[in-house]
Amino acid sequence: MSARTPIPVGSDKPLFTPGPLTTSMIVKQAMLRDLGSRDIEFISAVKEIREMLLTLASVSKEKGYETILMQGSGTFGIEAVMTCTGPVNGKWLIIINGAYGDRIAKIAAVNKIGYEILKYSEETVPNPADVERKLAEYPAVTNVVMVHCETTTGIMNPIEEIGRVVKNHNKIYFIDSMSAFGAVPFDFEACQIDYLVSSANKCIEGVPGFSFVICKRDALLQTEGWSRTLSFDLFAQWQGLEKDGQFRFTPPTHTLLAFRQALHELFQEGGVEGRAARYKANYQVLVAGMRQLGFKEYVPADLQGYIITSFRYPHDSKFDFDEFYARLNAMGFVIYPGKVSNADCFRIGNIGRIFESDVSALLRAIKATIKGMGVEL
Amino acid sequence: MSARTPIPVGSDKPLFTPGPLTTSMIVKQAMLRDLGSRDIEFISAVKEIREMLLTLASVSKEKGYETILMQGSGTFGIEAVMTCTGPVNGKWLIIINGAYGDRIAKIAAVNKIGYEILKYSEETVPNPADVERKLAEYPAVTNVVMVHCETTTGIMNPIEEIGRVVKNHNKIYFIDSMSAFGAVPFDFEACQIDYLVSSANKCIEGVPGFSFVICKRDALLQTEGWSRTLSFDLFAQWQGLEKDGQFRFTPPTHTLLAFRQALHELFQEGGVEGRAARYKANYQVLVAGMRQLGFKEYVPADLQGYIITSFRYPHDSKFDFDEFYARLNAMGFVIYPGKVSNADCFRIGNIGRIFESDVSALLRAIKATIKGMGVEL
Repeated sequence: MSARTPIPVGSDKPLFTPGPLTTSMIVKQAMLRDLGSRDIEFISAVKEIREMLLTLASVSKEKGYETILMQGSGTFGIEAVMTCTGPVNGKWLIIINGAYGDRIAKIAAVNKIGYEILKYSEETVPNPADVERKLAEYPAVTNVVMVHCETTTGIMNPIEEIGRVVKNHNKIYFIDSMSAFGAVPFDFEACQIDYLVSSANKCIEGVPGFSFVICKRDALLQTEGWSRTLSFDLFAQWQGLEKDGQFRFTPPTHTLLAFRQALHELFQEGGVEGRAARYKANYQVLVAGMRQLGFKEYVPADLQGYIITSFRYPHDSKFDFDEFYARLNAMGFVIYPGKVSNADCFRIGNIGRIFESDVSALLRAIKATIKGMGVEL
Repeated sequence: MSARTPIPVGSDKPLFTPGPLTTSMIVKQAMLRDLGSRDIEFISAVKEIREMLLTLASVSKEKGYETILMQGSGTFGIEAVMTCTGPVNGKWLIIINGAYGDRIAKIAAVNKIGYEILKYSEETVPNPADVERKLAEYPAVTNVVMVHCETTTGIMNPIEEIGRVVKNHNKIYFIDSMSAFGAVPFDFEACQIDYLVSSANKCIEGVPGFSFVICKRDALLQTEGWSRTLSFDLFAQWQGLEKDGQFRFTPPTHTLLAFRQALHELFQEGGVEGRAARYKANYQVLVAGMRQLGFKEYVPADLQGYIITSFRYPHDSKFDFDEFYARLNAMGFVIYPGKVSNADCFRIGNIGRIFESDVSALLRAIKATIKGMGVEL
C-alpha cells in the first residue's frame, strides 16, 4: 500500500496550518486500539517512542541525553521546562521575535519567575552580539530560552550561534523547537541545547495530545524538586518513565500509538533530511505561486523557513480575510489566520501529510478566490 | 472502505481497569479525521460537547453553570482547579480517604497553597460532623475538596451530605468525580458543588487526552487572574471557549471527536441511569463470582461503589500478583494492581465498554488461573 492510498474518498480538507496537521490514514488507524496504560504492550510502545526521539535528534542515552513525554499541548511542555529547570532564585533571558517568544515571557510572568527579555521585531532574527551584551549586563541570568522556528512568521532563528554565546556564559539553554523539530536538520550537540521541546502534532505528523522534551541528563539531574507544580514535574515524569516505563498520570494512549506510527513513517521518508526535502518542495511551490499571483511575504526571503509562511494582505480594500478564508474552506482548503503584531497577514503552512500537488491545488484555489472576490494584486 | 473494516482480527483485550478503558469501535473511528483546531467544524464539535456535558450533569447555562475543557490527564484538571479557584491567601480543607485525596494534598503542597487535611482510613467514608468540626476549627479555610468515588478502593463518598456542611460554612466546594461522573446519579444542585472535575476516559467512555470542569459561573467569575500558571488558567480557558469556541492552546482534536461520539453513545444508553445500570450489573456479577471463588473485598459492601473493586490477596503464600496478572493477561484479560496503603489488594474495574458476559468470562479465567497456580482460597 503506497503512502497515499489510505486517504478515503471524501476525506478531510488538507490543512495548511501550523498544526494540528493532516496526518496519514495509517497514523490515525493506529488509534483503533484500547491499550491499558500500565500494560506491557503500551509500555513497550512508549519505550520505542522515547528511543526513536533520541535517534531523530541524533543523540543517545550514551551521549548523555534523555527524553520525557508530557501530556497536554506544546505550551504545556514549554511551561513544564520553564517551571522546572531554573533554580529557585534563577532568572531567565527570554529572546523574543514573535508571539511564541511573548508567550514564554507570559509563562515566566504568571509563574513569578524572574526574567529579562531581548526583543526584536518579528521580521528580524536575534543577534548573538546582543545576547552576549545582555548576558554581560545581567550576570544573575541562569537560563536562556529562544524559539527555533517562530510560528508567528515562519522565521528561522540561529540556534547554534546563540547557543555558543549562551554556553560561553555557562547558562542553561532551552530551545522551543515546536514547529521545526523533525523537519529542520541541525546538530543537537553543536547547538549545545540543554532542553528542547516539540510536540506530537507538528513535523513528526502525529496527532495532538502531548509534547516531548529532549534534554541533557546532567542538566536534568540538577533539577530534582524544582518543579512548581505536580503535573509538570519533569524530573518526576522522567523518573517514572525510567523506573517502570509508565507515566505518573494517565497518558493519551491512543495519541501515543499514532505517534509511534508517525515516527516510523518519518524514518521511512528518510528521517529529518527526507522530510525537510518534502516540506522545502512544498514551500518552493507555494512561494513561487504566491509571488506570481502578486502576494508578498512578511519575512525577508533569506530569513524565512520552509515550515510556515506569513503573507501580507493585498492592499486592495476588496480583500477581506474572513471571506477569503471561507471561500477557500468551501473549496476544500484550510489556511490559517495571521499572528504578526504590526501588519495584516495570513499564514500558509507547508507541513503535515501534504505534497507539492496539494500546494498546487491550493494555489489554483487561491487564484480563483482572488478573482471571484475581484481583488487586484 | 466501510467504516468498520479497520477493526483488526483479534481485537484488544477487555480492560478491567480504572481507565483508559475499553471504548466502542465507533468512538475510536471518530478519530479517523484531521480537523483544524480553529476550523468551524471542530469549533462546532467543541460546542456540542460542552452542551452535552451540562445536560449530563442536569444543569445548564440558564441555571448558572459553565463547562471548561482542559488538555492533559485528569490530574491536570484537578491541579487546574486547585491552582485557580482559591484566593491568593486562601486555604483548602482536603478530605482524604485514599490515594487520590493524598494526591490533591500533594498538589497543594507543591504549589505552596495553604491547606488542612481531614484524613480517614481507606475503608471509611468521611463524616459530615468531622467536616463541621474542622471548618469551625479553621475559619480561614476558603475551599473544600473531596473525591467522589475513591479509585484507590472504589468507595463512594457522601458528596451531598458533606456539601451541606461546606455550604453552611459558605466555602467553595470542589468534587473530584473522576471515576464517577456519567455513571453515578446525583443531584448536582443539591450537592451544592462549585467545581467538579472528571476526565474523557472514565465513565463517559472516551479516550484519554483531556479533563473537564463543570462549575458555577458565580464562583468562576471571582477567579480572574488567580491562576498560578498559564496552561492551567481555567478562567482564561473558559473565556477563550466562550469568546470564539476555541482553545487557547492546541486541543487534542481527535480525542475530542471521540468524546463527542462517546457522549452520544452514553445518551443512547439512557444517560447516567442507563450506564449506571450496566455498570451495576457488571459489579454484581463480579462480586458474586469473586465471593464464590473465595475472594474478599477490601471495602465494606455497604460503602462499596460499583465502579471499581479492591480485592484482598488470598492468604495462600502461593498467590503471587505478578504471576496472577500475567496469566490473566495471557488469557486476554487486563486487571489492575492495588493502591491501598495498608493491605495487599488488586483491583477490578466494571467500567468501559464491557458487559456482564465479559465479567463472566473474566471470572472463568480467574478460576482457572487460581487453580493453575495451586492457590487455596
